[in-house]
Amino acid sequence: MSGEHELKSSSVYQPESVPKTRSSLLDAPGRSTAPDNILSILERANYIASMTHLEDLLEQMLSLMLEISGATNGTLYLLDREAGELVFKVIVGDEDSRNMVGMRIKEGIGIVGSAVQQAKPIVIEDLASDPRWYRDIDPVRTAHLRSAITFPLLLRGKPIGAVQIFNFVHAELELLQVLGNRMASEVDKVQLLEQTKHSNIRLQALVEMLGQIGAILDRDQLLQLLTQQASQLLEADSGRVFLVDRTSADDNLLLYKSSQNQGQTLKEDISMQLDEMSFSHPEHSFKANSAISVPLRTRPITVGKERAKFEESLIGNFLILDKHTGDFDAEDTQLLEILASHASTVLQITEIYSDANELFLDFIKVLASTIDAKDPYTRGHSQRVSDLSVMIAQKLDLTGDTIHDLRIGSLLHDIGKIGIPDRILIKPTRLTNKEYEQIKKHPGIGYKIMSQVHLLHNVLPAIIEHHERLDGCGYPLGLQGDQISLFGRIVAVADVFDAITTDRPYRKAVNIEAGLDYLKTNIGVSFDGYCVNALASRLRSGE
Amino acid sequence: MSGEHELKSSSVYQPESVPKTRSSLLDAPGRSTAPDNILSILERANYIASMTHLEDLLEQMLSLMLEISGATNGTLYLLDREAGELVFKVIVGDEDSRNMVGMRIKEGIGIVGSAVQQAKPIVIEDLASDPRWYRDIDPVRTAHLRSAITFPLLLRGKPIGAVQIFNFVHAELELLQVLGNRMASEVDKVQLLEQTKHSNIRLQALVEMLGQIGAILDRDQLLQLLTQQASQLLEADSGRVFLVDRTSADDNLLLYKSSQNQGQTLKEDISMQLDEMSFSHPEHSFKANSAISVPLRTRPITVGKERAKFEESLIGNFLILDKHTGDFDAEDTQLLEILASHASTVLQITEIYSDANELFLDFIKVLASTIDAKDPYTRGHSQRVSDLSVMIAQKLDLTGDTIHDLRIGSLLHDIGKIGIPDRILIKPTRLTNKEYEQIKKHPGIGYKIMSQVHLLHNVLPAIIEHHERLDGCGYPLGLQGDQISLFGRIVAVADVFDAITTDRPYRKAVNIEAGLDYLKTNIGVSFDGYCVNALASRLRSGE
Repeated sequence: MSGEHELKSSSVYQPESVPKTRSSLLDAPGRSTAPDNILSILERANYIASMTHLEDLLEQMLSLMLEISGATNGTLYLLDREAGELVFKVIVGDEDSRNMVGMRIKEGIGIVGSAVQQAKPIVIEDLASDPRWYRDIDPVRTAHLRSAITFPLLLRGKPIGAVQIFNFVHAELELLQVLGNRMASEVDKVQLLEQTKHSNIRLQALVEMLGQIGAILDRDQLLQLLTQQASQLLEADSGRVFLVDRTSADDNLLLYKSSQNQGQTLKEDISMQLDEMSFSHPEHSFKANSAISVPLRTRPITVGKERAKFEESLIGNFLILDKHTGDFDAEDTQLLEILASHASTVLQITEIYSDANELFLDFIKVLASTIDAKDPYTRGHSQRVSDLSVMIAQKLDLTGDTIHDLRIGSLLHDIGKIGIPDRILIKPTRLTNKEYEQIKKHPGIGYKIMSQVHLLHNVLPAIIEHHERLDGCGYPLGLQGDQISLFGRIVAVADVFDAITTDRPYRKAVNIEAGLDYLKTNIGVSFDGYCVNALASRLRSGE
Repeated sequence: MSGEHELKSSSVYQPESVPKTRSSLLDAPGRSTAPDNILSILERANYIASMTHLEDLLEQMLSLMLEISGATNGTLYLLDREAGELVFKVIVGDEDSRNMVGMRIKEGIGIVGSAVQQAKPIVIEDLASDPRWYRDIDPVRTAHLRSAITFPLLLRGKPIGAVQIFNFVHAELELLQVLGNRMASEVDKVQLLEQTKHSNIRLQALVEMLGQIGAILDRDQLLQLLTQQASQLLEADSGRVFLVDRTSADDNLLLYKSSQNQGQTLKEDISMQLDEMSFSHPEHSFKANSAISVPLRTRPITVGKERAKFEESLIGNFLILDKHTGDFDAEDTQLLEILASHASTVLQITEIYSDANELFLDFIKVLASTIDAKDPYTRGHSQRVSDLSVMIAQKLDLTGDTIHDLRIGSLLHDIGKIGIPDRILIKPTRLTNKEYEQIKKHPGIGYKIMSQVHLLHNVLPAIIEHHERLDGCGYPLGLQGDQISLFGRIVAVADVFDAITTDRPYRKAVNIEAGLDYLKTNIGVSFDGYCVNALASRLRSGE
């Protein structure tokens, strides 16, 4: 910044030698315009004012002013109150001058600054002799600008900007001011309209984001989308989510769970105290030019029936850093708060849902392992059969939902043993025929018990069919070939493989290769070839 | 509607005898206004135009026109293109005339209709002799209106309304028209602004609704809130939700699940075919003046892990009837679609969550009943103990979450019997001391098994403590008084009550009163008095 004038660029006005258009609106140079001509000018102003695009409107209005005063160049400045600067908004004249659009002058500086400060017009016949005229720029290039009318744009008496007209012929000051003040009111209305439209667009974007967020019940994917969307909505560089550590006794402990940095997703597991949570905290290097931090607080969640409600709770903190343009404003904060509140509620529902799922899976794992553990020789059997079944299903590219059902069905495949007398189940010596007939009832018993659970309908084949054989010599139903479901085939392979690769009272375990060989020998007789090969492929790849 | 003029009310203009304000803006009556005065008038117009409230702006502008022309009364009409009518928007003059605001004239009718149709001003010195002048109204009351200037308001050359000025002194036609056309451009901008603001307010209301809906995981409450909110957002009389019947094989069957009618919530269980779903279908009496129907379609829901995704699906239909003002428009449809999409997704999540919950509860019910059923004498025992425990808890006003835990814990209170040999469990004769010692291990075994399920931590006391006694003579821990948890006390009462009120191998069942008497006798020795009294109170009230 040097001297009185604080132009931020050294570009200069390049006056045109001849104005492009010229009409004879005016009675005589230097004279007041006649009423009829005034009315005709005003009609043109009406037409221009009907435009809704601000830049076009201002440029047309400024051109009309040049015409009225017979001037060659003109500049419209708008006041940026926060910055205390006048912004070069519209320039009419030569191409070079137009490059100055966007430049800024400090309020109160220069001729235009004075006109705005005093809320009065300034007419200068000889710019060169006025000490306020900007001298730092190339004098050759500004030599074309000889005279200037400068007047403030007043809205309800207060300046919102100014117009400067160069090389005028007629000093139609009053008419120019009337048109200028009209411009002020148009600028005000169009700016308000554009602001409202912009806030409308942001709200619509927010609504779409809420829809996307509301359809994700997976924490990590949700956090990733959240940081990405918030950065986008707030036009910011990065977003970071911190969650209260539910596993810690310290309620204040936050885990740095997800962040988005200029499009890249990062995951870090820094933990920190809630009261340290400041972007300016040097340790965590959250240095930023601008930042918003809002709490992640869930709404109370109504679940109905007897549980009724989960209370509102603080589950973390959401930090957005570095807005691309300027500082975050009140609207940014408001939008982020809404997004954070929704996301917190969805996160909470995600926890509620995954708790319910985890509870069921843990429960049946524990139950199956309890039944297996009655006989030391079958300890861990159901879990292993389940793992092997899932491996086969993954290799066969079954859908996630089907694999989920199979995981449950295979865990429960021996649940019917609950109905077999312990003395038979844990008998260390070889079973009698009659005892073996008893044992063979377990798939049917399991089916009978589990068919009472409506939502387990899909998993029943894994229970009732896991001792069936393709040749029809299996039990309890003696199904053949295509009569046996995919779940039945998969669990049969997994079940036999685990049985022969673990020690039993009457024989030692065989190794994996021997186990696979046994299965292969019996493809088409007992076992489905796809299932056996899928298992072999997964086990041999070392998984 | 009679004759050429279609005023919808018989109110009349009531001219004032003397205009309220009068300035001497004008050089001489009937003459063209001087340039300086024009500019001063335009400055006032600028000031008026800076208003953002449309009615104020129009009224001030109309008053300015009356002043310019020395008139006593004035009316501003705006064109309602859809209805083909001119609406009395602003009236300046006496109080009676102002009552006509909101009235309508058919386009093309009367003097004002002609001026709009021809897009040209009409000056009438003697209204009484003009055949277009409205005659059906009280001639005494209109006698004050002697002359009129009527001119259209033109926006980019097209009429958007008209101004009519009565009892004028100066026919300042050109100036009036310039001001009128300026008004047209202001009306256009302010209307656009008000529309945008209104749509902003609706979006904000929508966002708040989405937040509320997203926090409800109970279907009935969600449907109730949804119909209520949609009716409110769309300013409609009623909303109705139909859901695809998941229990039916017919995919097209819809169940009429919830409706909101002018604030009242109704529930009906009409079922109907999807293709019958029309508000005009006479059978279902959906007679309405206006209606929107949108599908309830969920987004695909990401659940993560192996299940990955629930596909998008059509779960029903949402019908909104009878907008309070006019017809539903494109914005209404758009807002309803967003609301419907969110609500569908939340409904789907509600189903997913309640399925997971139901699956677990059904599973443990079936498991407990399987264990009970090993001994014919204990068939249904765990379910009854659970029901009784919940009754006690409700009477003691425990929270929903606690009752939920207790329901699970009491269902599982005998789960440890899974580890007791069947021959002891189902022994029809009296147990030996050694066998009894075996039986007494079941709370500990149940505790050991279930403590492996992380999320069942809260329910363990119901399992381990249900055979403890206040006097310390219970098992397996021999806890005393305050050492026994509330769950332990409640389930102990429920367990003993069910045992003595059902037949056992060694004795007959006693009736409810005798059972309660037994419990009461042992208050403070075995049982907690609050729990016993709560049970007695619930059972005696006939529940």
